[in-house]
Amino acid sequence: MTEQEILQNAEKLIANNEFAMVGTIGKKSFPNIRALKVMKREGLNTFYFSTRSDSEKVKQMKKHKKGCIYFYDTLTFTFANVLIEGKFSIKPNTLFGISSFYKLDNEPYDFCTVKFEATKLYYYVPYQKYIVNIKK
Amino acid sequence: MTEQEILQNAEKLIANNEFAMVGTIGKKSFPNIRALKVMKREGLNTFYFSTRSDSEKVKQMKKHKKGCIYFYDTLTFTFANVLIEGKFSIKPNTLFGISSFYKLDNEPYDFCTVKFEATKLYYYVPYQKYIVNIKK
Repeated sequence: MTEQEILQNAEKLIANNEFAMVGTIGKKSFPNIRALKVMKREGLNTFYFSTRSDSEKVKQMKKHKKGCIYFYDTLTFTFANVLIEGKFSIKPNTLFGISSFYKLDNEPYDFCTVKFEATKLYYYVPYQKYIVNIKK
Repeated sequence: MTEQEILQNAEKLIANNEFAMVGTIGKKSFPNIRALKVMKREGLNTFYFSTRSDSEKVKQMKKHKKGCIYFYDTLTFTFANVLIEGKFSIKPNTLFGISSFYKLDNEPYDFCTVKFEATKLYYYVPYQKYIVNIKK
């Protein structure tokens, strides 16, 4: 697979997934996972999520910026999956608000935007792994 | 919700999921996620997976035993999800082999059993979090 083909396959898999599994490092060095809806995305470079400012996840992301997001389509039965490593930053606004998703009139609680900037992409198919560095 | 109700809800959600999202800590302190099929499980206490002995995941689990497994049913639209913290150990056998899953005549490559022993369960519904310590 060429680098272009890997990125095309990853793009297709991610486009089919409304949710990303977001990996952080939490208390007592336990890895942590939460499913978050991808609110906006710029190709495979930058992903935006929306979550509560006072959530445990946000605390974890501020303390330990390194993280990953993971996409796996169990429905296609190709067993392909994509892991992206990158860095989180927290923006104190609700630009990509959860309100539209939950069909609420107002943004609930105090929400913020989580920005994830990708550095490395892993594309997995059974018994094969492909790695691509994500350029800015 | 009583502790019993939390565990019943978690049990139901997990029983509906063939795959667990398995969280480990990898190279350069990046959290890592992989979808693994639950090969066997003893209630909410112990989970068994099967994977390649020489895989990156197994290396990570040997080095850093603390991990988590995560279940999220995007199909039900209740947005309930379960995170379980615990410890991994690697058993050098293929007792819960992947061969049956992939319908292969022989176990491919050199596989091993990953045992995950739960210590703490988090049951999440929108804006609510419930925590239960898992007893041995």
